[in-house]
Amino acid sequence: MKLATIEFAGKTGIAMVREDGVVRLDNVAPDMQTLIQAGEPHWDSARWMGQSARETIPLDQVRLLAPIPRPRKNIFALGRNYAEHAKEAANARSELAGAPTIFSKPPTTVNSPFGNLVVDPDVSLQVDWEVELAVIIGKRARKINRINALDYVFGYTVLNDVSARDLQTRTSQFFIGKSVDGYCPMGPWIVTADEIGDPQNLDLTCRVNGIVKQTGNTREMIYTVAYMIEDLSRVLTLEPGDILTTGTPAGVGFARKPPEFLQPGDVLESEIEKIGVIRNPVVGV
Amino acid sequence: MKLATIEFAGKTGIAMVREDGVVRLDNVAPDMQTLIQAGEPHWDSARWMGQSARETIPLDQVRLLAPIPRPRKNIFALGRNYAEHAKEAANARSELAGAPTIFSKPPTTVNSPFGNLVVDPDVSLQVDWEVELAVIIGKRARKINRINALDYVFGYTVLNDVSARDLQTRTSQFFIGKSVDGYCPMGPWIVTADEIGDPQNLDLTCRVNGIVKQTGNTREMIYTVAYMIEDLSRVLTLEPGDILTTGTPAGVGFARKPPEFLQPGDVLESEIEKIGVIRNPVVGV
Repeated sequence: MKLATIEFAGKTGIAMVREDGVVRLDNVAPDMQTLIQAGEPHWDSARWMGQSARETIPLDQVRLLAPIPRPRKNIFALGRNYAEHAKEAANARSELAGAPTIFSKPPTTVNSPFGNLVVDPDVSLQVDWEVELAVIIGKRARKINRINALDYVFGYTVLNDVSARDLQTRTSQFFIGKSVDGYCPMGPWIVTADEIGDPQNLDLTCRVNGIVKQTGNTREMIYTVAYMIEDLSRVLTLEPGDILTTGTPAGVGFARKPPEFLQPGDVLESEIEKIGVIRNPVVGV
Repeated sequence: MKLATIEFAGKTGIAMVREDGVVRLDNVAPDMQTLIQAGEPHWDSARWMGQSARETIPLDQVRLLAPIPRPRKNIFALGRNYAEHAKEAANARSELAGAPTIFSKPPTTVNSPFGNLVVDPDVSLQVDWEVELAVIIGKRARKINRINALDYVFGYTVLNDVSARDLQTRTSQFFIGKSVDGYCPMGPWIVTADEIGDPQNLDLTCRVNGIVKQTGNTREMIYTVAYMIEDLSRVLTLEPGDILTTGTPAGVGFARKPPEFLQPGDVLESEIEKIGVIRNPVVGV
């Protein structure tokens, strides 16, 4: 099923998105984090309530928010996880690593699937795109083996790891360049794991003003979703609602010749097969 | 004032720590995050309630937890912020940066001021110490100037940025080596900003089994607390309850000859002038 966080008639809550419209699930849980933490019986309730409802709200009448508008910790992010992107990025800095390259993005970066991206010259002159498959953890996990790691996944969503390259490269640590307010649009909804099946066979595309900048398929990941869950959970406890984003394919702006960066007036679109598309207008201060 | 999160008689809550004992402040706020978010009038209520109480609980009868047991986002951390430590670390990797080197530690790392540090050979064989002054943000802040940045500080606490060096150096990004469950003991309480005065004039010390390993003074920081607030808030919104940790002086284990790492049976003590000492036994799995 597709689960969204929506605003409609002045009220924010969760909803199932069906072919024929949207069904509110306020009776199941007040928000997505609570639903995920509540566990599988509640996920089944949400499915049953959503599928059996007779009336729907037209999709174009609701405002879609980020599926988890306020994550309970920073988003776990993978760098250089597609070989072609790793090569293009290597021109700018350092070598191919022998292990997953992990950093984080704070909750204040989270943005709506159709929210504005603010480009502020006082903050960065090099705002760049990175379409990524994001994974939502469903169950507490420590020391999970990759063999059954996908059992811990609640679902998937589209995420753009918008990056301020000048900040990202000012020291060895990517963090500050990944942490600008609003630089993590997500959505348009979570598609639950059962509906995605194999997460390593999804096309992903990023467009700027309708022109394709990135294309790839999640089968090209160096470290799979399952591997990332094994690797992180060896060291730390993964919790329900945790978000892992899995790296981006080649075609980012800073590696282009000449380099390209987002400017006010641009429209950034990020799309993943079986999930959907998010669309973020770029605006000035 | 000194504000702690305590467990006593089966109940967790906040308390003022006085010379003569501890005063519960359950009537002011249910937890530290709520108190900080509530703002200055509530901080004044806490002070009044704490100071005017006639009865106290002996300090040795309460269990001290981390002042903020579950931060709402990762802890912001500075690397290489004391010149002598930056030099010793540079032997291992990279140059002195021209800007603050920032990474993060997830909320799952937070540990009590007297909690055990688990050394697990499946996770890391190189567990190292880093005593640090941690800053608790009191007010929402974006684009703050260093001139008045300290006005946004709620208080200060002692933090040890326990680091798994083998994980920290497996790629360019420190994150995974800073993120082991429980590897961020904090406390024993928050000392409010008014009681600290100048945060750039505090002695800090780290001992292992009573032997001094690190000594320094916060005046030796390359980037001050005020500068760090300016730098972060240029890019992102700082929020009440955010924790910034400000880097460590020289004397860490990995830079010693031969290198030294924590082993089961060791006791790690981290102390800062005007705040206090935290003491963490190291145990095996």
